[in-house]
Amino acid sequence: MERKRVVQARMRRFAVKAFLALLILGLPFQSDAEERRWGTASLVVIVERQAGSVLIIDSSRHELLGRVSGLGNLTHATVKFSPDARYAYVIGREAQVSKIDLLTLKLVKQVNGGKLGIGGVISQDGKYVALSNYIPGEVRILDAETLELVKTIPALYADQNAKNGSQLPSRVAGLVDAPGNLLIFSLMDANSIWVVDAGKKEFPVIKKFVDVGKTPYDALISPDGRYYLAGFLDSNWMGLLDTWRLDRVTPILAEQGKGPEVPLWKIPHLKGWAITGRLAFLPALKREVALVYSTLDWTPLPPIPISGTALYTVARPDGRQVWVDIIGKNGDLIDIIDVDSMKVIKTLNAGPGATHPQFTPKGEAAYISLMDGGKVVVYDTTTFQALKEFPADHPSGIFFANRAHKFGM
Amino acid sequence: MERKRVVQARMRRFAVKAFLALLILGLPFQSDAEERRWGTASLVVIVERQAGSVLIIDSSRHELLGRVSGLGNLTHATVKFSPDARYAYVIGREAQVSKIDLLTLKLVKQVNGGKLGIGGVISQDGKYVALSNYIPGEVRILDAETLELVKTIPALYADQNAKNGSQLPSRVAGLVDAPGNLLIFSLMDANSIWVVDAGKKEFPVIKKFVDVGKTPYDALISPDGRYYLAGFLDSNWMGLLDTWRLDRVTPILAEQGKGPEVPLWKIPHLKGWAITGRLAFLPALKREVALVYSTLDWTPLPPIPISGTALYTVARPDGRQVWVDIIGKNGDLIDIIDVDSMKVIKTLNAGPGATHPQFTPKGEAAYISLMDGGKVVVYDTTTFQALKEFPADHPSGIFFANRAHKFGM
Repeated sequence: MERKRVVQARMRRFAVKAFLALLILGLPFQSDAEERRWGTASLVVIVERQAGSVLIIDSSRHELLGRVSGLGNLTHATVKFSPDARYAYVIGREAQVSKIDLLTLKLVKQVNGGKLGIGGVISQDGKYVALSNYIPGEVRILDAETLELVKTIPALYADQNAKNGSQLPSRVAGLVDAPGNLLIFSLMDANSIWVVDAGKKEFPVIKKFVDVGKTPYDALISPDGRYYLAGFLDSNWMGLLDTWRLDRVTPILAEQGKGPEVPLWKIPHLKGWAITGRLAFLPALKREVALVYSTLDWTPLPPIPISGTALYTVARPDGRQVWVDIIGKNGDLIDIIDVDSMKVIKTLNAGPGATHPQFTPKGEAAYISLMDGGKVVVYDTTTFQALKEFPADHPSGIFFANRAHKFGM
Repeated sequence: MERKRVVQARMRRFAVKAFLALLILGLPFQSDAEERRWGTASLVVIVERQAGSVLIIDSSRHELLGRVSGLGNLTHATVKFSPDARYAYVIGREAQVSKIDLLTLKLVKQVNGGKLGIGGVISQDGKYVALSNYIPGEVRILDAETLELVKTIPALYADQNAKNGSQLPSRVAGLVDAPGNLLIFSLMDANSIWVVDAGKKEFPVIKKFVDVGKTPYDALISPDGRYYLAGFLDSNWMGLLDTWRLDRVTPILAEQGKGPEVPLWKIPHLKGWAITGRLAFLPALKREVALVYSTLDWTPLPPIPISGTALYTVARPDGRQVWVDIIGKNGDLIDIIDVDSMKVIKTLNAGPGATHPQFTPKGEAAYISLMDGGKVVVYDTTTFQALKEFPADHPSGIFFANRAHKFGM
């Protein structure tokens, strides 16, 4: 009995000591973890193009959380998000895919997804990362969890000059996801638009539309996921595909590229962010206007004169303003169009190389990269006052995590 | 020199030991933490109305994460989210506000926000939780961080029967946030709509519209945040306020409440989720149809016959389907309207007390509560097959975290 009591006492002492030891050792871990926690729904990932890194900012408090480096060539980069916004996928110029855990700010996986790429997208069901590659000309589909290769869809078209029926690979651009778990993309060298069913195991190409326009370079899908709209470098229109029908690509908006030419610094981006319900605001190739179209029938409305050539036209989430990123001449300026009066009501001289305005999810603030000014500036979109600045190394693309829930974004 | 070397060796040994000890002790903490982490952007909170608890599910994997209990009277409850979706605010029938940390599934704060409430909303800037109370008749504004009372706005109106200019409190309903950091709400007993500027320190009531219609009971704000639309119990129309103008409330949609009456089981909810771009689908008071309106000019289109009286009409995020929750007669059914053909193309016999269909952020799946069937069922919205079930105690409202980024939600 005596011996048992001694053993019990020893065990108690040991348990108390072990408990205290764990408590003391555990405390710094826990409080450290407590300090470092955040929700992921309104994070923003900002590309530092020359350093090959990204900044992660909590836009709900405008607080810098950290930086993730070693992401390769980000001279043309895009960022995609898993449906829960736990993971960001940074896709670089050389089709390198870096999967970042946004809870720990750690690079958790990195693969080479091709030789030269122009972007990618997450499938509607969140299971896949699809890459639009220039070299090799293909769509490459990776498992979103493991980044393992699941499928390659070569973007091949018939070589008109060959007699033996041989095929050539085309660069792929304008890749989006669409309702019904579809993937839609354009073949830049084949003047074609293809549709893939990503819900089927073999990822069949279920539609191929040819001769849709010359040299499609980018595309957008309307925020509701219904309309795919392709821009062309060498045709004077845009191509519209109604995904409810999937029957034909209709030439519309015969305005693109028209009018006096100004230097083309960069090819404007087409994104669903430019659609405000009944109106679409598009950057014009080589023109100093924002093009405006009715989304009811895609008829052109009077273009809006702006301070230069637009690279991006981005609607505030409530559609009452469109912020226009000017590139080249007057490249430091951001024009703000008031959608009610259809006029530029404010021009921000944001600073050297101001680019890529993007809004917080409800639009009360806008983030702008000063690519040559070494910082990101946050503006109040009602007062146009600068709220905050973040030092950044040649910042470019700004990607809010609520893109996780937007088609084509 | 010798002594220094000995000290250095000791320090090295100590460092190695300390490192190993920390490694071993740290491992279980880390792997434990690893298992319990998730992104917050696509979480879903489901109310268990009788138990006074909520289930938290990760909709990106359809995985149950846990349950949080002790939330008071949830017979009429709503759930709001902080902009980063880290926190859910469960607002109960007795205006009890419970703040839940969605990373830890812990109740972090709980306050009594009134005596009897009908809901609440988070301000556009994410700083405040505003409550629409029946008793006392008021809007109460809490700090979203601390849940401390910031401001009370009594909903007082002149007592027509009194000669001394005394005032009566009105029940408040249809509270939404709007662009410009506004709060808009209806005074049920005063036939009024008020607008508050939540960006100003004193929360001034900047507009009061009177005699807008009899007994406003609920309202919605259009997804772009522009149009506030109030429903009335005792008027044959709805009231439309254009928030870009804030000049008047226009009577529209003179269809509401018309036609053969069926038993009114419950007052239908009005939410922005019923608007699919150019069309609005609204539940009708006492009629067995879904009302349809053009959002271009708010003219009525032919109503769509459905299996009973609708409680909710919910558009799939891409606007191609509207799922209709039938209440009372045929209450186990969910009608699915195809927006292209404007017909019910599928009726799900989902089970006892099927209610509150809600979609994953990109709409590939729908969650439905079986209030009397003890479970929540997840459907594939393309094949209409059940994908998964979760046992639940009298589940009712289903709230996806992407509401954090939607006006009025």
